[in-house]
Amino acid sequence: MANSEQMANAIRALAMDAVQQANSGHPGAPMGMADMAVALWGRHLRHNPQDPHWADRDRFVLSNGHGSMLLYALLHLTGYDLPIQELKNFRQLHSKTAGHPEVGVTPGVETTTGPLGQGLTNAVGMALAEKLLAAEFNQAGHTVVDHHTYVMLGDGCLMEGISHEAVALAGAWRLSKLVALYDDNGISIDGQVAPWFIDNTPKRFEACGWNVIGPVDGHDADAVDKAIAKARAQSAKPTLIVCKTHIGKGSPNRANTSKAHGEPLGAEEIALTRAALNWPYAPFEVPAEVYADWNAKEAGAQAQAEWNQRFAAYRAAFPELAAEFERRMAGDLPKHFAQTAVDAVVEAHTKGDTVASRKASQIALEAFTAKLPELLGGSADLTGSNLTNTKSTPALRMDAKGAVAKTEDGQIGRHINYGVREFGMAAVMNGIALHGGFIPYGGTFLTFSDYSRNAIRMAALMKQRVIHVFTHDSIGLGEDGPTHQSIEHAASLRLIPNLDVWRPADTAETTVAWSVALSNRDKPTALLLSRQNLQHLSALAPKRNLGDISRGAYVLSEPADVGLKKKAKAVIIATGSEVQLALKAQRLLAAKKIPVRVVSMPSTTAFDREDVKYKKAVLPTGVPRIAVEMGVTSGWWKYGCAAVIGIDTYGESAPAPVLFKHFGFTEENVAATVLAALKRK
Amino acid sequence: MANSEQMANAIRALAMDAVQQANSGHPGAPMGMADMAVALWGRHLRHNPQDPHWADRDRFVLSNGHGSMLLYALLHLTGYDLPIQELKNFRQLHSKTAGHPEVGVTPGVETTTGPLGQGLTNAVGMALAEKLLAAEFNQAGHTVVDHHTYVMLGDGCLMEGISHEAVALAGAWRLSKLVALYDDNGISIDGQVAPWFIDNTPKRFEACGWNVIGPVDGHDADAVDKAIAKARAQSAKPTLIVCKTHIGKGSPNRANTSKAHGEPLGAEEIALTRAALNWPYAPFEVPAEVYADWNAKEAGAQAQAEWNQRFAAYRAAFPELAAEFERRMAGDLPKHFAQTAVDAVVEAHTKGDTVASRKASQIALEAFTAKLPELLGGSADLTGSNLTNTKSTPALRMDAKGAVAKTEDGQIGRHINYGVREFGMAAVMNGIALHGGFIPYGGTFLTFSDYSRNAIRMAALMKQRVIHVFTHDSIGLGEDGPTHQSIEHAASLRLIPNLDVWRPADTAETTVAWSVALSNRDKPTALLLSRQNLQHLSALAPKRNLGDISRGAYVLSEPADVGLKKKAKAVIIATGSEVQLALKAQRLLAAKKIPVRVVSMPSTTAFDREDVKYKKAVLPTGVPRIAVEMGVTSGWWKYGCAAVIGIDTYGESAPAPVLFKHFGFTEENVAATVLAALKRK
Repeated sequence: MANSEQMANAIRALAMDAVQQANSGHPGAPMGMADMAVALWGRHLRHNPQDPHWADRDRFVLSNGHGSMLLYALLHLTGYDLPIQELKNFRQLHSKTAGHPEVGVTPGVETTTGPLGQGLTNAVGMALAEKLLAAEFNQAGHTVVDHHTYVMLGDGCLMEGISHEAVALAGAWRLSKLVALYDDNGISIDGQVAPWFIDNTPKRFEACGWNVIGPVDGHDADAVDKAIAKARAQSAKPTLIVCKTHIGKGSPNRANTSKAHGEPLGAEEIALTRAALNWPYAPFEVPAEVYADWNAKEAGAQAQAEWNQRFAAYRAAFPELAAEFERRMAGDLPKHFAQTAVDAVVEAHTKGDTVASRKASQIALEAFTAKLPELLGGSADLTGSNLTNTKSTPALRMDAKGAVAKTEDGQIGRHINYGVREFGMAAVMNGIALHGGFIPYGGTFLTFSDYSRNAIRMAALMKQRVIHVFTHDSIGLGEDGPTHQSIEHAASLRLIPNLDVWRPADTAETTVAWSVALSNRDKPTALLLSRQNLQHLSALAPKRNLGDISRGAYVLSEPADVGLKKKAKAVIIATGSEVQLALKAQRLLAAKKIPVRVVSMPSTTAFDREDVKYKKAVLPTGVPRIAVEMGVTSGWWKYGCAAVIGIDTYGESAPAPVLFKHFGFTEENVAATVLAALKRK
Repeated sequence: MANSEQMANAIRALAMDAVQQANSGHPGAPMGMADMAVALWGRHLRHNPQDPHWADRDRFVLSNGHGSMLLYALLHLTGYDLPIQELKNFRQLHSKTAGHPEVGVTPGVETTTGPLGQGLTNAVGMALAEKLLAAEFNQAGHTVVDHHTYVMLGDGCLMEGISHEAVALAGAWRLSKLVALYDDNGISIDGQVAPWFIDNTPKRFEACGWNVIGPVDGHDADAVDKAIAKARAQSAKPTLIVCKTHIGKGSPNRANTSKAHGEPLGAEEIALTRAALNWPYAPFEVPAEVYADWNAKEAGAQAQAEWNQRFAAYRAAFPELAAEFERRMAGDLPKHFAQTAVDAVVEAHTKGDTVASRKASQIALEAFTAKLPELLGGSADLTGSNLTNTKSTPALRMDAKGAVAKTEDGQIGRHINYGVREFGMAAVMNGIALHGGFIPYGGTFLTFSDYSRNAIRMAALMKQRVIHVFTHDSIGLGEDGPTHQSIEHAASLRLIPNLDVWRPADTAETTVAWSVALSNRDKPTALLLSRQNLQHLSALAPKRNLGDISRGAYVLSEPADVGLKKKAKAVIIATGSEVQLALKAQRLLAAKKIPVRVVSMPSTTAFDREDVKYKKAVLPTGVPRIAVEMGVTSGWWKYGCAAVIGIDTYGESAPAPVLFKHFGFTEENVAATVLAALKRK
C-alpha cells in the first residue's frame, strides 16, 4: 500500500530543494498541490512514462505553470526520462527543467504554461479534440479514443479574463471528460486575495454549465481521489474540484504566506521544513520505497499494451480509419496534399476572380477542407465576415445529451462558433493542435489580434500549427473606423518570432498562403485578408511566376511587361491590397518612360528565410526601393527602402475609397513618391 | 406627459435611416435598446447637454459601441451640439458621427467603444474614480461628487473575458453607483447564441458580488425605469439589470435575426418598419413634440445650476479643496510640478544609485506620489515585483460596509491591487483617466502587455494619460524563461500610434521618463524597466547633459570622454540596460584608438518627434550606427543602422549573466560588431 504522505513529501522536498539550488523559482505551489498530485497522478492519470506520445494517454496541464517543480517532480518520480540531474539543473541553460514547463523541451509536458489562464484554455482545446476524435473515429465495439484531460490551476488563472472564455466554452461544449482541480489557497503574489478576489468560484462555474465538487480538503489525497472518481463517473458536464490547500504546506514559517510563492525558502527554513515533514533525506534524495510507490512505468506500459491490442482489433475491422487516425495523430498531411495545393492555385490563377482576399481564402478553404478532414475551422462570432466556413465544414453542435451532433450523412461539426472570445479561441486552438488530430484555424478581425496576441505568441513559442484568419486588414474596411482599422497589426505580428505572416494580394497568392500555412508543421501562421475586393493580378501582371509566391516575395512585373525595354530604375514593394496600386503606378511611370519593377511581398517572414542569392535577385542592390502598405512604416526600413508609403496615425471612419485618397493610397501618389526617390538619389 | 413609445421610435427611425443613408452600420442594437434608452436617458440620467464636461454629470457608456446610432440619436434628441446634419453624415469622413462612438470627436461621448468588453471595463474605472473622489473631496454637509455610471452592453461584451475581470473588480470594490443594463436579445452576429453562450448571466454576476435585477421586459420603459430606480436606491453593490429585448425591434422581417445586426434594413424593409411603428415621418424627420419630450437642456441646466450652488458653498467652506478639485478635474499638474521633477532628476543624478530601473521607478514615484495626490497606482498582482507602491500610496481597501476605507490619518487608498487581471487593469485605468481627477498608473511584466494590448491602444487612440509600468523588460529577468522574457514587446509597443515608450538606463533617465509621462496630457506612456540592477551612468559618463534626456535620445558620451581627441567614427545607440554595455564597448574601442560616440535612446517615440536638426546633431550622417537592444532587431533599421545587436528568437531559462553571454550581450561583442561595421564601410 502506497504511503501517500511520503509520496507528497517527496514532491515538496524536490520542489524546495530545486528552487533553493537554482536560487530562483516558486516552491509554494508544488508544496501546496502535492497531495492533489498524489490523488491524480498516483491513482487516476492514465499515462505511460516510457511513451509520452501515446495517442490515447490522459492529458495533464499545469495551468499555474510557475509551479513547474510539481510537474518536474512528478515526471521524474513516475519514470519519465527526466533524471535527478535535470532537477538539480532546474532553471539552468539547456536543462530539461526550464523555469516554466515547456512542451518539446521536457518529455511529458503537454503544453507550455506560465502566462496565466491559458493552460486551462489549452486544456479545453485538448478535451474538445478528444471529444471530436472520439465521435469521428470510435466505432461500435471499438473505442480507440477515450481519455481524460486534467488541469490544475490556481487563483491567478481564475482571475484572468480568458478563464471565463474557457469555462463558458467548456460548458457549452459539454466537455465531461475535462476535470479541473483548483488549488484554492487564498494567496496570490500580492497576499491574501480577499480584497481583490471575492468571486464565488463554484457558483461562477455552475453558471457556465459545470459540475462542481467540493470544497474538499486538498491535503487529503483520499478526498481528492474520491472527487476525481466522482467526476469521472459522470458524463454530463466538465468538472471543477475545489481543493482547499495551504500554499507552501510543510514549511513552518512560510506556509500560507505569499512569501512562499515566488522565492526560495532558504537553507534554514528548508531544514525546519524537513523536520516538520519528517523527511530526513538529503537534498534530491528520495528513498527507494517512495520511488516504488510513484513508479508508473509498469502500469503505464500495461495500459498502453491494452490499448495497442484494442487498436489492432480496430485496424483489422477498419483498416482505412486506423491508417487515417494514425496519419492525423502524426500530423502528416495526406499524400495528395501537394497536388491538391497545386490544383487549387492553378484554378485560382485561371479563374482570375476579382474578390476580397477573405473571399479568396474561403475559396481556397473550399478546396482544402474538402480534402483535409483534419481542418477544424471557426470564428469568434464573425463567420459571415471572416468567411471561415465551407460546404465541407458543418457547424459544430452538441445534441441534447451533450454528445457531438452529427449531420444527416454522419459528419461531425468542423466549424466552431467560438462566440466573441478571441483570446479563448486562440488558446483553445493551441490546445487542439497540441492534442493532435486536427489543424485548427479560426477567424476574427485583424484589429482584434490584439486580444489574442499572447496566445498567438504561445503557439509560435510552442511551434504549433495553428492558423489565424485575420480579415478586415486595413483602412480598407472603411466606415467602422479607427477602432477596427488595423494600422500597426501587420507590422506587429511580424515581430513575433516563429510566426508566419501572410498578406496576399489576390486569389492565387491567398491559395499559396494557405498551402504554406498548412505545410508549416512547426509554426503558426497569420493570414491578413482584405474586406474589400482586390483586382486579380493576372489582369495586370499576366506573366508572373506562381512558383515563387511561396518564397514570400517575388518579381511580379518587370518594365518589359509594361512595354519598356530597360532595366528597372526603381523597385516598388507592395503587399496585399496595395499590390494592384503598385502595378498601376508602374504603368503611370512607364508612360513617363521610367522603368520600374514591382515586387509582391505577401510574406516578409517567409522572404526573410530565403537565401541571400534569392533575396538579391528580387531586390537588386543599387536600385531604390519604395514600399507601399496600409500600415505603420517602421518595419519596412530593414529592406533598405528609400521611401515607405504607409500610415503612422490612426485611421478614420469613412467609406474605403474616400480613405484611400485621404491617406495617399492612390496610383498617382505612389508614382510621385517613386519619382521623388529617384530625384533624391 | 411624454410619449415613451414615440420617443423610442424616434431612435429607431434615426438609427435605421442613418445606417441606410451610410449604407453601413448596425441598426439592430439601437432599435432593440431604444426603450431601455427612454427609461435611462428620459427618466434618470443626470446630464447637461449644454455642458458635456460638467464634473458631476452621470457617466454613460455604450459598451456595445457598434450600436453607435443609439448614442448619436440620444445626443441629438436631448440637445447636445450634434445637429441632424451630423446624423445624415453618419460614418462619413470628419463627421461627428463616426462608425463607433469616439471620445473627443462627439460631444457627450464619454469613451470610445467598439472593441467589446472594454466599455464595461471603462465604466468600472469611471465608477471607481467617482467613489474615490467622493471619499476624498466630499465633506460633511457638502456633497460635490455624487453621480452614477451607467453602461449598456450586449451578449458580445459578456462573452469577452475582460468582462469577467471588470465584473469581479466592480464586485470587490462595491461600486454601488454602477448600473449596467444588459441588452439580452439572444442574438449575436453568428445567430441565435444558444449553442455557444449558455451562461446563466444573473448567477454569474451574483457570484461576483453584484445585485441583479430582472429579467425585465426591455421594451417596457416603465419596467426598466423601476429597475433603475431600484438599483439607485441601494448602496451595497453594483447592479446588473437584465433587459429582455428583440434585436431590430419594429422591423417586421428583420427583428430577432442576426441580419438586423450589421447591415442596413433596405428601403423596402424600412418602409414596412415605418408602417409597423406608426412612424409616418420622412427620413431624419422628428416631430416637434417628440423633440420636446426628449429635450434635456432645461433639466440639465437646472441640475448643473444646483450643483454649481453646492460647489460655491463648498468653495466658501473649503477653498483649498475646491481649488484642488478643479485642478484635478481639469487635469492640470500642480504648479510646483516642474520644480518637483527637476529636483527628483537632480537627486537621482547626484545619488547615482546602482539599482534596477524598476527600483529607480519606485524612487521616482516616491517623489512624485508625495507631491501629486492625483497619482493612483496599482499592479496586476505583482506589486513587489513592479515596485509601483510608495510610502504615499496606501493600498486601496473597502470597509465592511463597502465604503472606501481610510488610513489612521484619513488618507484613502492610492494603490490598487488589481489581481491577475492585466487587460482589466488597463481598461479600468482608461476609465479612470476618462473620468478625470486621477492619473492612473499600473504595473505588470512587460511580456503581459500582450494581454492588455488593445486597451493600451485604446488609451492612445483616446489620447488619455495612462501610464503603464512594465517591468522585467528583457532576458535580463533570467530564469523565468521564454514565456516571461520580452523579445518583441518593446518594438511592438513602439508601433502603436500616440503611445510614448520609454526604456530608461538608470535612475536619472527613469525619473525623466516619469516626468515626461506625467506631462504627456494627450497620450499614454509605457515605461519598460529592468528586473536587474543597472550601473548608474554617471560612473561611466559623468559629463552627460541631463537636459536632453527628455528629447528621447541624446549624446551620452563622446570619444573625448574616454580620452580620444578625435571625431567619432561610429555611433553606438543603446537603450535601457544595454547602455552600460555600449559605454564599456566604447572604452574597449578607445583602447584600440577607435573613437566612438554613445547615444542613449530611452525613447524612440519621443526622439521621433524631435526636429531634423536635433536628430542630425545626435546621429550625424556618414557615421555608421550600431544599435544594441535585447529584443527584435526590426525596428532599428529605420535609424539607418549598419548593424543591430538584438534577439530575433525566443529567450531561454537560465540566470541572466549566462543569458547575456549566450545571446551576445557582452562588451566584447558590441565592440567587435562596431569593428566589423567599420570594416564593411
